[in-house]
Amino acid sequence: MYAAGDVRVEDVPDAHLVEPTDVVVRVIRAAICGSDLWPYKSMQPTESGQPMGHEFIGIVEDAGDEVRAVRSGDLVVSPFLFSDGTCVYCREDLQTSCVHGGLNGGRYGVDTDGGQGEAVRVPLADGTLVKLPVEQDDALMPSLLTLADVMGTGYHAARVAHVGPGRTAAIVGDGAVGLCGVLAARLLGAEQILLLGRHPQRTALAEEFGATDIVSERGDDAVERVRELTGGHGAHSVLECVGLEQAVVTALEIARPGGAVARVGVPQHDQLPGGIPFWKNVSVGGGPAPVRAYIEELLTHVLDGSIAPGRVFDRTTELDGVPDGYRAMDDREAIKVMITF
Amino acid sequence: MYAAGDVRVEDVPDAHLVEPTDVVVRVIRAAICGSDLWPYKSMQPTESGQPMGHEFIGIVEDAGDEVRAVRSGDLVVSPFLFSDGTCVYCREDLQTSCVHGGLNGGRYGVDTDGGQGEAVRVPLADGTLVKLPVEQDDALMPSLLTLADVMGTGYHAARVAHVGPGRTAAIVGDGAVGLCGVLAARLLGAEQILLLGRHPQRTALAEEFGATDIVSERGDDAVERVRELTGGHGAHSVLECVGLEQAVVTALEIARPGGAVARVGVPQHDQLPGGIPFWKNVSVGGGPAPVRAYIEELLTHVLDGSIAPGRVFDRTTELDGVPDGYRAMDDREAIKVMITF
Repeated sequence: MYAAGDVRVEDVPDAHLVEPTDVVVRVIRAAICGSDLWPYKSMQPTESGQPMGHEFIGIVEDAGDEVRAVRSGDLVVSPFLFSDGTCVYCREDLQTSCVHGGLNGGRYGVDTDGGQGEAVRVPLADGTLVKLPVEQDDALMPSLLTLADVMGTGYHAARVAHVGPGRTAAIVGDGAVGLCGVLAARLLGAEQILLLGRHPQRTALAEEFGATDIVSERGDDAVERVRELTGGHGAHSVLECVGLEQAVVTALEIARPGGAVARVGVPQHDQLPGGIPFWKNVSVGGGPAPVRAYIEELLTHVLDGSIAPGRVFDRTTELDGVPDGYRAMDDREAIKVMITF
Repeated sequence: MYAAGDVRVEDVPDAHLVEPTDVVVRVIRAAICGSDLWPYKSMQPTESGQPMGHEFIGIVEDAGDEVRAVRSGDLVVSPFLFSDGTCVYCREDLQTSCVHGGLNGGRYGVDTDGGQGEAVRVPLADGTLVKLPVEQDDALMPSLLTLADVMGTGYHAARVAHVGPGRTAAIVGDGAVGLCGVLAARLLGAEQILLLGRHPQRTALAEEFGATDIVSERGDDAVERVRELTGGHGAHSVLECVGLEQAVVTALEIARPGGAVARVGVPQHDQLPGGIPFWKNVSVGGGPAPVRAYIEELLTHVLDGSIAPGRVFDRTTELDGVPDGYRAMDDREAIKVMITF
């Protein structure tokens, strides 16, 4: 990506091992992330561009001398962050705060390759990658690809918001993460699952995923509608899956006294209205999802068919079509684009 | 209170029963709350004034026909809020959100009497009052009085911030609530207890209460000092007991990744910096403390001597001295003032 709206497919130097803990993964499936749309909307022009993409599945092509957990030929999924798996935060399953970690895909100053490309150097492979027990042409591949980010992110939101049996969950946002949040809320046993969204194709999928109610209103009207649907109380658990200020305010407003709001939408503003949660004792948590912590558990659910998060991919392209994939997601023609190689 | 800095002791109509669920309590001990200092600093002048005080212990003098839990002659402590004890929120121990509740002491539009006075009508007595198993001249009276607010508020902060064995707790603020937060952190088994405060008399009491480290720096220096004291990580549990913007920002900054901040200081500003907790997955909770939920448990600890929160009262006055008590607390001459009758 060279600037807002300017995505190019170019030849770059081949991915190669740098550290003995690296592997090189040949990518077979990748995705465009909703968070990639923020720079797509606003990135200042640069001469050199930046590699893009942090969600991918691939085959290990080369492994450094110190790598033990995977070897050449293994099919692996890579979480959007790499992490050492051994530091104090990794041991607490907060790999997003790994003291040696960083973002796969070359953004934020870490010199790795873009996941929306043919091959990626993955640092700290033992702590990062998870081997997949399927073949690379498996029909589950789209769902497995979501374990790199969106399904784990939706699940993180549901966990942080304390979704559970007997509780009402409200998901703000009908993007891929919000839809995965619906799946996560159902997995965790929520009694009532409200999706706040207004795009018919997406809300229809949300209903198939387990949403019991669709709230298509916005702002104050959405708050009023959620109250009506929850006996006047609001939702115990609110999953904020957008990141825009209005979505965050709505999430805080619709939380039931004593409830929990989890934010996983990348914040596009810095200030939160602190009074809304304070006076009703609502906790506000969340952040970048430590998806590495959830892969094994969610993998089980994908393999046994209890969730099919891959359905969020409603468009597939080869590498040449990636620029148009960005456009399609930004224009909301597509929920989420999968890239095949 | 008629205006900022203008507190008067006046004759008012006698407290009397209005509803059959009311009792009238003759006050024997009351307190000035740190939150009373906010209007003391900023209240716009009014013709009629407002009754003050929401922390008191007293003797039931008269009880409505429907009151069952207490009767005339009982010694009772009243939480700062009244609550019905039966609604959906009360049953979840979130009495601060009681659908029929309100603030004892006449503020916020509820027509009750000020607790800093000789007698108070307490609505919803069965859900609100707790009978005390001691005589009214008991030496524990100051500690029992703190169960009306500050000890329960510090305890709420510690609970919301998930204080527990093996964890580091940091308390921001050396007022009465912060000092009670130290006691609460010790009760809940924190391994390391940091108190952020700079008033020698208060920090000395904090150390007696169980603080292991005193951080007298402010702002960035305080953040740096807490990091040094916690192996570079920050505190697992942060209790924000002030309410001013700088204190809240410091609380967010010193929280360890994956940690929890509890706010119980009455917010004097509305905006929180949302990015600080987001990027490190810190949850931010708290609010007005449902102290009613904690009275029985904390009462046990007061009676067996394991906590002595009454030591936060470092000045005692009769009713005539209340205006000067406000001044002394506002000038930080006194931590907290107890009123005897």
